[in-house]
Amino acid sequence: MPHIQLPEGLPGITGLLAFRPETAKPITELAEILLRGPSSLTSGEREMIATFVSSRNDCYFCQTSHRAAAAHHLNGNYDLVDAVRADYMSAPIGDKLKALLTIAGKVQRSGRDVTEHDVAAARQQGATDIEIHDTVLIAAMFCMANRYVDGLGTWAPTDPGLYDQMGHAMATQGYTGERRK
Amino acid sequence: MPHIQLPEGLPGITGLLAFRPETAKPITELAEILLRGPSSLTSGEREMIATFVSSRNDCYFCQTSHRAAAAHHLNGNYDLVDAVRADYMSAPIGDKLKALLTIAGKVQRSGRDVTEHDVAAARQQGATDIEIHDTVLIAAMFCMANRYVDGLGTWAPTDPGLYDQMGHAMATQGYTGERRK
Repeated sequence: MPHIQLPEGLPGITGLLAFRPETAKPITELAEILLRGPSSLTSGEREMIATFVSSRNDCYFCQTSHRAAAAHHLNGNYDLVDAVRADYMSAPIGDKLKALLTIAGKVQRSGRDVTEHDVAAARQQGATDIEIHDTVLIAAMFCMANRYVDGLGTWAPTDPGLYDQMGHAMATQGYTGERRK
Repeated sequence: MPHIQLPEGLPGITGLLAFRPETAKPITELAEILLRGPSSLTSGEREMIATFVSSRNDCYFCQTSHRAAAAHHLNGNYDLVDAVRADYMSAPIGDKLKALLTIAGKVQRSGRDVTEHDVAAARQQGATDIEIHDTVLIAAMFCMANRYVDGLGTWAPTDPGLYDQMGHAMATQGYTGERRK
């Protein structure tokens, strides 16, 4: 049961966004820009970073919904998302994304853990300043979202079909529109 | 040295906000609503929660600048902010704020650490749903901001006078205006 009285029937962060529309606006705008805005990283790559960090934070709702959003950006390839989540270094992804996931994993623990070496390694694989910036901020944003969702004890459905629908809406309609009303 | 090429002369988060105005907009709006928007918690109380979480995350720039902002909301009472940061349970603050700081401290580690008992204790001291919500989200937001600032290796001045000026501007002009341009 949630720790506060939230609107019925809205799982995870969606109940919190409906409860406090003033804070929902900037939170959803930030998600929209970072995950679906113009970028040299694909939305699939960015949603995999979000899923990976949410998994490290053990947030069931966030990791399951963003896993589905990532898969919908990747032609339904749930296996790839699961491979990244389980062990990204052995997953069939490029070396640049691996280096960015290393940075994201450090940020999940503490921003202070990111080293010059981590950043140099990403740059060597072709990562640009803005890609490094956005990776750090995506990881940091999910450290916020995961704590928000779990810190208020929100409920999460378990039906995989529901997450697949949610992921489809997140991937195709995004974060700021009618979806969450 | 910052991990990416940032505009010169802008410390901590300010250089990052100037580097990426698209993400700066929702981040500063969220800070403005949570720390200075309409609330039954004073801005001094909310800035103390921000300072406390930033201190637990060991983020020098955030804890020092928000310490100064809190003090400016509290008629210059740096001693009170420092007492909260050092050991809030023995600080001369009300029991409601102590209960909210307990929740914020759990969120800093993991949202999953917040228990029904923590929330019931806050409610017993008169905390409302929105106060509990905002406490969790302020703590979560600073888990984002601290990781953003440190994860990109931003520089921080050490001169206390500079932070006092910064805190004054944060307390009187807020987060979304001309201050950071």
